[in-house]
Amino acid sequence: MKISIERGALLKAVAQAQSVVERRNTIPILANVLIEAEGNSVSFRATDLDIEVVDKTDAMVERAGATTVSAVTLHEIVRKLPDGALVQLTDDGATGRLSVEAGRSSFSLATLPKEDFPVMASSEYSANFSAPAPVLRRLFDKSKFAISTEETRYYLNGVYMHVSDAEGGKVLRAVATDGHRLARIDADLPPGAEEMPGVIVPRKTVGELRKLLDDDDATIAVSVSETKVRFATPVITLTSKVIDGTFPDYTRVIPSGNTRKLEVDASEFAQAVDRVATVSSERSRAVKLQLDEDRLVLSVNAPDAGAAEEELAVAYSDERLEIGFNAKYLLEIASQVDRENAVFMFNSSGDPTLMREGNDTSAVYVVMPMRV
Amino acid sequence: MKISIERGALLKAVAQAQSVVERRNTIPILANVLIEAEGNSVSFRATDLDIEVVDKTDAMVERAGATTVSAVTLHEIVRKLPDGALVQLTDDGATGRLSVEAGRSSFSLATLPKEDFPVMASSEYSANFSAPAPVLRRLFDKSKFAISTEETRYYLNGVYMHVSDAEGGKVLRAVATDGHRLARIDADLPPGAEEMPGVIVPRKTVGELRKLLDDDDATIAVSVSETKVRFATPVITLTSKVIDGTFPDYTRVIPSGNTRKLEVDASEFAQAVDRVATVSSERSRAVKLQLDEDRLVLSVNAPDAGAAEEELAVAYSDERLEIGFNAKYLLEIASQVDRENAVFMFNSSGDPTLMREGNDTSAVYVVMPMRV
Repeated sequence: MKISIERGALLKAVAQAQSVVERRNTIPILANVLIEAEGNSVSFRATDLDIEVVDKTDAMVERAGATTVSAVTLHEIVRKLPDGALVQLTDDGATGRLSVEAGRSSFSLATLPKEDFPVMASSEYSANFSAPAPVLRRLFDKSKFAISTEETRYYLNGVYMHVSDAEGGKVLRAVATDGHRLARIDADLPPGAEEMPGVIVPRKTVGELRKLLDDDDATIAVSVSETKVRFATPVITLTSKVIDGTFPDYTRVIPSGNTRKLEVDASEFAQAVDRVATVSSERSRAVKLQLDEDRLVLSVNAPDAGAAEEELAVAYSDERLEIGFNAKYLLEIASQVDRENAVFMFNSSGDPTLMREGNDTSAVYVVMPMRV
Repeated sequence: MKISIERGALLKAVAQAQSVVERRNTIPILANVLIEAEGNSVSFRATDLDIEVVDKTDAMVERAGATTVSAVTLHEIVRKLPDGALVQLTDDGATGRLSVEAGRSSFSLATLPKEDFPVMASSEYSANFSAPAPVLRRLFDKSKFAISTEETRYYLNGVYMHVSDAEGGKVLRAVATDGHRLARIDADLPPGAEEMPGVIVPRKTVGELRKLLDDDDATIAVSVSETKVRFATPVITLTSKVIDGTFPDYTRVIPSGNTRKLEVDASEFAQAVDRVATVSSERSRAVKLQLDEDRLVLSVNAPDAGAAEEELAVAYSDERLEIGFNAKYLLEIASQVDRENAVFMFNSSGDPTLMREGNDTSAVYVVMPMRV
């Protein structure tokens, strides 16, 4: 293998690859990136056996070939090279080393045989569709905060992406929950997604996927099977196993009979919650909401540290209500609101509360109360 | 006590105080800041028993008085209040609470009696002088990287500030070393400093002091005794115990007979060292320098990861030399050079090497070589 490639293009490709690589590996080859050069392009492939990412970029290929080197070391080297440098990667096969040359710098990196690299088996996908990057970004960005981190509830360690019925017809839906709060985000169903099986996309995959979704004009090709999901742009392909489990019936958790409506400026609300929570004890983080006619009083009472209270002008016309929440959960759902007022729908102080943005039902959040 | 104070001024005063407070305290009062209001100003005092900082700021004092509250909680609250808010601090004595009010937010914080707060005993200082903030900033900024972190060599855990003889007469000198490298920075001796005893200013004090030195136009009043040092601006007074130990005779470590002179662009040199060190093993971080007529080759050879080499055009006219260094140490001293080329003076591959900026001898660095 012998290729020349501009430092910027190389950095981008290697950065995506090395982020998939786990830092602590017992299997040495998994620390490596598989570099394959052919025609006029080179691909960089990395995997942790659950996720595989392949990044393809143009390069001047003088001699085709393939090898594997440490993803982290290659990334570090390329990162430190001066901007605009032309980088030569040469693998002469004989020494078992990959030489990396740019200007007056030269490196010789230990390689492992390309044959040892575990390339993910290709699959049959039962649904293939395309979606604009901003649509997928919204689905995952607004739901991922609710992903559970409890390993024993592994079936909650991801975002449940599936097809569902909503008021206006079928939708592409992302749901995440950790039992304390839940996010349900809908998007128009892309053509071709109708037959998609519901899949739980693991937390790490959601994180890696995010890097493909930054470009507002990009279209993402999505493929889904019972066991795998694939997201692809023209240059990057991210394939991931999905979580082998059953996502619980979340519809039962979403309250439909909540009638007490509170409307509040989401950012004012979040700031006030943040302030009063300052004195709350580390463990409970309990904030009390007292609702009266067009008036919300947020308060915290921590015997050791002190007390805090803040009043907000709101729209509320139902009867008096007192209800408590974990401040962190309130802050997280309030920070999802980016356009309109936050609308909270309460029932009683013991029942789950629903939150949405204005009258938009395509993104709803549920948060469990706590006793205060 | 009852005072009103603008949020910005309050934040600045409390921020400095809370940074001195240790996060893990076995003595509850040490987590608190002592607030004292009198006349038309209020002071915030915090201590860890070794360092005391007092920050004085103007305030509308309606009722004089004093109390103590958690420095971290007060800082968090003030930080989260909206910019421009007017904050009222009220201590009614009866409840044992300090009330903090701003707009529609109100907090009530647990207090501890002001009598329990350990105010540092005032001392006699044997020398008092003033120095411009940029002069002190340079002395400490350029030396602190070399402070030892080994607790057993406690007498190296700070910067040795003292009066010394240099070529042009007496100077105010800062020296720090950890046995592997040494920094010696000189400044003109301020009037009044002649009789100053040499003191070892602890690492934490150096860090806290740094915040007083940001203003280029500020003049810092410095007072020194055998056991304490004080730095003061019109608003902030930082008093610190000094390390009770003898700083070793560093002059013997600074080589005077090194004749092999290398002159190199400091930033090019640092970048090249950083690049080749990428493949070095975590532990040794050894980089080899090979010097030939106007040519420097930096190289690293790590059997596991690979090898790296980079060539730099330099000014060198002595005989061929090979010498090894810890890459981290080389990077740190090279990053001290801010105006000119770095000048290295070598003797043999086993002897300490001297580095300075151009021909300026007011800042010199010594670094021990390592076998490569």
